[in-house]
Amino acid sequence: MADVLEGNCLVAQSGGPTSVINSSLAGLITEALNHECIEEVYGGLNGIQGILKEDIVDLAEESQQTIRGLRSTPASALGTCRFKLKKLQDCERAIEVFKAHNIRYFFYIGGNDSQDTSNRLSKFSKEKGHEMRIIGVPKTIDNDLTGTDHCPGYGSVIKYVATTVKEIALDNEAMGRGNLVMILEVMGRSAGWIAAGASLAKRRDHPHDPPHLIYLPEVAFSPQKYIDDVKRILKTANSCFVVVGEGLIDSDGNYITTSATQTDAFGHSLLGGVGEYLGTIVEQHLGVDVRITKLGYAQRAAIHCSSQVDSDESFALGQAAVRAAVRGENDKMVTLIRSDSEQYSCDFGLCDLNEVANNIKSIPQNWINEDGVSLNFQYLKYALPLVQGELPITYENGVPKFVHIDKYRIGKKLAPYLIE
Amino acid sequence: MADVLEGNCLVAQSGGPTSVINSSLAGLITEALNHECIEEVYGGLNGIQGILKEDIVDLAEESQQTIRGLRSTPASALGTCRFKLKKLQDCERAIEVFKAHNIRYFFYIGGNDSQDTSNRLSKFSKEKGHEMRIIGVPKTIDNDLTGTDHCPGYGSVIKYVATTVKEIALDNEAMGRGNLVMILEVMGRSAGWIAAGASLAKRRDHPHDPPHLIYLPEVAFSPQKYIDDVKRILKTANSCFVVVGEGLIDSDGNYITTSATQTDAFGHSLLGGVGEYLGTIVEQHLGVDVRITKLGYAQRAAIHCSSQVDSDESFALGQAAVRAAVRGENDKMVTLIRSDSEQYSCDFGLCDLNEVANNIKSIPQNWINEDGVSLNFQYLKYALPLVQGELPITYENGVPKFVHIDKYRIGKKLAPYLIE
Repeated sequence: MADVLEGNCLVAQSGGPTSVINSSLAGLITEALNHECIEEVYGGLNGIQGILKEDIVDLAEESQQTIRGLRSTPASALGTCRFKLKKLQDCERAIEVFKAHNIRYFFYIGGNDSQDTSNRLSKFSKEKGHEMRIIGVPKTIDNDLTGTDHCPGYGSVIKYVATTVKEIALDNEAMGRGNLVMILEVMGRSAGWIAAGASLAKRRDHPHDPPHLIYLPEVAFSPQKYIDDVKRILKTANSCFVVVGEGLIDSDGNYITTSATQTDAFGHSLLGGVGEYLGTIVEQHLGVDVRITKLGYAQRAAIHCSSQVDSDESFALGQAAVRAAVRGENDKMVTLIRSDSEQYSCDFGLCDLNEVANNIKSIPQNWINEDGVSLNFQYLKYALPLVQGELPITYENGVPKFVHIDKYRIGKKLAPYLIE
Repeated sequence: MADVLEGNCLVAQSGGPTSVINSSLAGLITEALNHECIEEVYGGLNGIQGILKEDIVDLAEESQQTIRGLRSTPASALGTCRFKLKKLQDCERAIEVFKAHNIRYFFYIGGNDSQDTSNRLSKFSKEKGHEMRIIGVPKTIDNDLTGTDHCPGYGSVIKYVATTVKEIALDNEAMGRGNLVMILEVMGRSAGWIAAGASLAKRRDHPHDPPHLIYLPEVAFSPQKYIDDVKRILKTANSCFVVVGEGLIDSDGNYITTSATQTDAFGHSLLGGVGEYLGTIVEQHLGVDVRITKLGYAQRAAIHCSSQVDSDESFALGQAAVRAAVRGENDKMVTLIRSDSEQYSCDFGLCDLNEVANNIKSIPQNWINEDGVSLNFQYLKYALPLVQGELPITYENGVPKFVHIDKYRIGKKLAPYLIE
């Protein structure tokens, strides 16, 4: 047991939101209030970018109702950012802010880039002699973080995607025209986890159910094979359901897309257009009718169709992060460790931040069938437990009711201690 | 009271499916079994196109469970078609099929084109001396049928669209980058009803909530005004949420689209690409970041987010159609008539099929604000009651469970009486 470290706690959110990222926030706040060594519970607005500007609010002022409501409110309630700590003065500035507000606990909910940020801050605070504990909380619909069995946000996005596939598939079946190719473009920059999740739309023991073809970044894309795949499906089914992740690449590792290459703040390629590209190919070569659905941001915000298991795990990971920090852990990310038993359950573990930062976990090749366009029982065994249960949502006037953390209330925001 | 007409009943579905079209089917079957004058309850597969081929199944053989399950199964369980009765021999053939199977009651669930089909068949059966009663049941997410206050399917699609807007809007707010334009492309070929429904995402008395700009076919599109609109919004909001219906037209009445003009079997233009078009304009002129979501077929199949009121009304309209036919009505469509009272309720009425066939109901101009991109209280008063209540859905293995009418079971399909 480490020494008791007394001081304030700061939580923040980073990267693309998920529908359950606020569950982790709720778990963090709830648990932080249980520990006497944690004096104040602060929220950093818009991730580390806001923290550098001392955009910090007092979360203890929020009502119990609001904290509970976070569990059914998608997107990052504290705001988020895509900001990489590159410059030395950014790190110095962050530590100054931590010192000024006596921040001894920092929890950062995010993906690979965010874990990298936490990793740097942890190392830098040590250098600067400011004792603190930094724990990352995983979050990404992409499910591509190493060190954890799966990522909070993933179960919900694939529940929504598989539900959407199952619904659209019935529509296609009803239209029954024999030459329809339905293309669903989903997210997933570096790995095909989200596209793979569409296979949950198949009924048990109905391998020929839609989606018929799933294209993953883990399998190099060949236009000719794709055309042959579609032709083969249309021989026996009255429509062909294609699911494709935005990060599809060819055998040279180039992204498959119709649009010009753009990059975001991290140098990642901004993708889009792979659905249109797949549509155009078969329109031209097979003369089929193509319909495209592009879920875009809807998929990572769809709390109205999210997984209870995912939401509960997200909340529990927030709690586990606080407990880990209080007992002395630092420079770690909390993880989910799946038990070996037949009945699904997860324990909480920890992994080193530098292990997870900037690494990518792809779908194991032996979970992908030889046809390259479907997943086998190993994937199903992995994914099925993650989509169980339907998170109850409160509706008001026919649409979901969400809570807001009021970031602009006068007197709410901490007075900045530092002058730029 | 008309004479009792004894014979068999045939039901079929036509046009693009909705998430609740099977509720009307369930209502028809349930009610038909209550009337002694109706001997057999048959289903025509793939609409009139299948009926011409004598693709007819005995629906009384379906289990009670299946009929109940239809109320939570999207898309047309009997299959559908887009087929216009053009040729005289098609009409003659249909009457032959009706005669051969002693069909005295025909119920056709569909949109404008389907009501036109029913209208022709009703007239033609009279000409051919085959006494029968034909009643149309309205169905279209487009909500553009005349003669009825609103159309079954509409309440559900706007509940799903408004929910999606509200969820994505929180994501945009969290990202908070000040130069994001989110474009949501929805269906609606001839009228802006679906796009208008996105305005239900706004909280009461929060007119500045997303969606900020709604572009409707009812208002001629001007690229310059659109660019100015987006600029204006981005001055005060950190992102601009645009909703656009696929049927947007310019002041000359031409469709706004990036893709080449194609037409379907009815000569309607096949649309798509208006979202991309709106994205490209502001990317080029304002240098903003654009994200596009295109819900496509997902929106008309999304039973997991459909309206209880809509589902109930769809079922009740099916029942009302049978009752109307039994009491002697013919060549009519059942309609919803909204009561004048403060509390929302609808009665069931009838209108002549030739009134509704091929007509289009647009959004009244005085429901659209002067800015041309938002709806006023009159629209909200109209639309809000239609999205109330959440239809409960059964989940199995984490995704919705649907029922299937087994169209191919041996002995299920009627032996054809006629030889081609």
